Amino acid sequence: MTERLVVVGADAAGMAAASQARRRRTADELAITAFDRGEHTSYSACGIPYWVSGVVPDMASLVVRTPAEHAANGIDVHTGTEVTGVDLDRRVVHARSHGDSPGGAREWAEPFDTLVLATGSIPMRPPVDGIDAPNVLGVQVLDDGLAVRAELDSGRVRRVVVVGGGYIGLEIAEAVRVRELEVTVVDRSPQPIGTFDPDIGDRVAEAVRAMGITMVLGDGVAAIETGSDGRAVAVHTASGQVLPADLVVLGLGVRPAVGLARDAGVPLGTSGGIAVDQQMRTQAPGVWAAGDCVESLHRLSGQRVVVALGTHANKQGRVAGINIGGGYAVFPGVIGTAVTKVCSLEVARTGLSEQECREAGYAFVTTAVDSTTRAGYFPGAEPIRVKMIAEKRSGRLLGAQIVGREGAAKRIDVLATAIWNTMTVDEILSLDLGYAPPFAPVWDPVLVAARKAFDAVEADVRHGSAR
Amino acid sequence: MTERLVVVGADAAGMAAASQARRRRTADELAITAFDRGEHTSYSACGIPYWVSGVVPDMASLVVRTPAEHAANGIDVHTGTEVTGVDLDRRVVHARSHGDSPGGAREWAEPFDTLVLATGSIPMRPPVDGIDAPNVLGVQVLDDGLAVRAELDSGRVRRVVVVGGGYIGLEIAEAVRVRELEVTVVDRSPQPIGTFDPDIGDRVAEAVRAMGITMVLGDGVAAIETGSDGRAVAVHTASGQVLPADLVVLGLGVRPAVGLARDAGVPLGTSGGIAVDQQMRTQAPGVWAAGDCVESLHRLSGQRVVVALGTHANKQGRVAGINIGGGYAVFPGVIGTAVTKVCSLEVARTGLSEQECREAGYAFVTTAVDSTTRAGYFPGAEPIRVKMIAEKRSGRLLGAQIVGREGAAKRIDVLATAIWNTMTVDEILSLDLGYAPPFAPVWDPVLVAARKAFDAVEADVRHGSAR
Repeated sequence: MTERLVVVGADAAGMAAASQARRRRTADELAITAFDRGEHTSYSACGIPYWVSGVVPDMASLVVRTPAEHAANGIDVHTGTEVTGVDLDRRVVHARSHGDSPGGAREWAEPFDTLVLATGSIPMRPPVDGIDAPNVLGVQVLDDGLAVRAELDSGRVRRVVVVGGGYIGLEIAEAVRVRELEVTVVDRSPQPIGTFDPDIGDRVAEAVRAMGITMVLGDGVAAIETGSDGRAVAVHTASGQVLPADLVVLGLGVRPAVGLARDAGVPLGTSGGIAVDQQMRTQAPGVWAAGDCVESLHRLSGQRVVVALGTHANKQGRVAGINIGGGYAVFPGVIGTAVTKVCSLEVARTGLSEQECREAGYAFVTTAVDSTTRAGYFPGAEPIRVKMIAEKRSGRLLGAQIVGREGAAKRIDVLATAIWNTMTVDEILSLDLGYAPPFAPVWDPVLVAARKAFDAVEADVRHGSAR
Repeated sequence: MTERLVVVGADAAGMAAASQARRRRTADELAITAFDRGEHTSYSACGIPYWVSGVVPDMASLVVRTPAEHAANGIDVHTGTEVTGVDLDRRVVHARSHGDSPGGAREWAEPFDTLVLATGSIPMRPPVDGIDAPNVLGVQVLDDGLAVRAELDSGRVRRVVVVGGGYIGLEIAEAVRVRELEVTVVDRSPQPIGTFDPDIGDRVAEAVRAMGITMVLGDGVAAIETGSDGRAVAVHTASGQVLPADLVVLGLGVRPAVGLARDAGVPLGTSGGIAVDQQMRTQAPGVWAAGDCVESLHRLSGQRVVVALGTHANKQGRVAGINIGGGYAVFPGVIGTAVTKVCSLEVARTGLSEQECREAGYAFVTTAVDSTTRAGYFPGAEPIRVKMIAEKRSGRLLGAQIVGREGAAKRIDVLATAIWNTMTVDEILSLDLGYAPPFAPVWDPVLVAARKAFDAVEADVRHGSAR
């Protein structure tokens, strides 16, 4: 008999799972049906800000695979269809298609033998007055991007307030600024991009301001004022500032979309994400989960964490799909690597920040070095600052942050690979990395940073503070 | 009593050793004297082609530290001074300064307690007629670069023949071509850049030819024809081609300069370089060696090899200097990482090539993937090809080669770090690398390559060839 696989959520994680399962099992062996509330499948959510800015001219280029392409691959995708419930005993999901979805409005129960929950995440919305105004928008799914872009293209938007100064907030602020509109970013913390250490955040704030973006820091949103037509007209901050706005974009980050799982009795983890094992199996038999809705092992803190990032979603979906297809794969966790471009500044991190080290109970030393991306004498050499956080005594690298210009950020991958392998800073400085003047100084900035961190670890041991 | 440290060779390795020793021991404890045949200290030899081309306008910018700066740091440097012999019993080196060196022409015996041999390497010169003509030049030391540049600046050079199509040969050919002169590269192999696999070499040849450089491959140099004034006028190849030349540049690679060590009775290793231990101690008591003249452990083949590269020289010198200064450091070997820019092409390698794998006795599978340096839809996304060589059965990454455009080559460092840590391709594809559209597709090219290599390893196991 044909086994039935149902996938809830048809973006990165869900469709990676479906595709991998399909690669290993024929349509006779496994029927695959996927549901998505939105109209699009398998797209790059991270590309949305660049399409909003116009840097990426064509929205279609963000879509890796359309529903029709999935259908041709033997995966039946229902877009515009919400899964409203999962019945684990009767082994059905309850689906409801919208009026304008291909099959028209209807409700039905879809049976499954195996289920993949790839329900993604939900943008945070502060519980303030006016938050539901039609021109208060997120930028999480492609349909959000469409809405933001429609507002910007309408010509009625001159002033934009972005709530939240994390990656997404800053990327969207830059996108709006590229379109020569007035932009203000509001963030509760004294520095933007709060997943980085404050000294890095200060540099980012500087670059953002240099681009003509107003930063309102250390101040939260108290209310959104609406006009007679119900549209937002201003953001009122906790300190009493009034920021006029024709459009408000929420970039406050996301939380895992676990309502469906919780209601169905699929256990959640301590972090609030769906609990999964190494193979991406939930604790409910025959139910798998992947992507922004699950929690993963953080390999440095040892805690389970939710990290909403397309690259993890793809990998987790692949792992689930391979296992569902009868193969074997595991997702061994994350180490907090992230990279972004903020105006002309490249910023990257991996491992734990200083604050995260404290929370995890690590004793550490911190060092930073300034160098150049190419040999100092080579044209196009750009500044790069590499910050390292090393465990006291052992010298194990716990975290690294990079800020610089063109060619700086992706060096984080070397340090991510080093952290993954629990290397000490002493070991890192012996690494055989590529050297030629167009690519690096004779001591790559990463090696200079390791050398300085090693000196700090040794000095700390000598002074006895690590004993 | 003050200990006397003598350093032979005042470039990267020698001066790194001297500086590190000085950091740890005062001038009262340790007197440091360094000798160099040339006029310059601590410069970037790898930058010479870029100064020849004019890309780097100022020769002085290649010099990291001048003799005067070393003197201010308590290191006495004698430039223009050749060390002609080492007497290990009497503990002296015999020095001879040239007539135009600061102290004038003289010979003397300099006593030492501790000796560092950092004698570097000697460019290969094929033993053919005409090889000693004054316009047949190497590009190894800064004085060579001065001579090449003087020829090019003289206005009498229109046609240049470069002998040898390795990194240096290609870099110098490009430098000459940038100056709009006619350039021909002659190499005995069917592909240039012979440390890479032939398929990568073919791509490089294509890029070099596209720049208007003539490549004569699979053909060696038989003789250099000289004119009545003794200057070279043409290169005759083994196959009988006659290549007119106003200047011949040798880019055939180098061999370790070990004459002084050998004559003094300092043991050499099987590779022909000076044998050293992890701390860079030779087998002669009180004698250390570092840089292009020593052999190192290749961590993949398990053999001792000589790799002439500034980055190793710096590290080895640092290690020797720390140990001489009473600290502790080791140089744990190399894995064959190299990167270069050939015209618009970036090329990089790490680990073993296919040929080197065969020689080392590894059974392996090879895969290659084509991807882009940024998300495919992002402006500035450039092509990148990542080739991986994985051990059969274990899946351990043995080698990788990258060829592509801007942003491609330095990704080799991730794979170098992975190889250093003996990761399998399966492990590599789980790595938490930085992702954002301006920096990478959602699956970084490195991860895509690992995924494909993993599939190849699995397929090979299934087909039983690894048993």
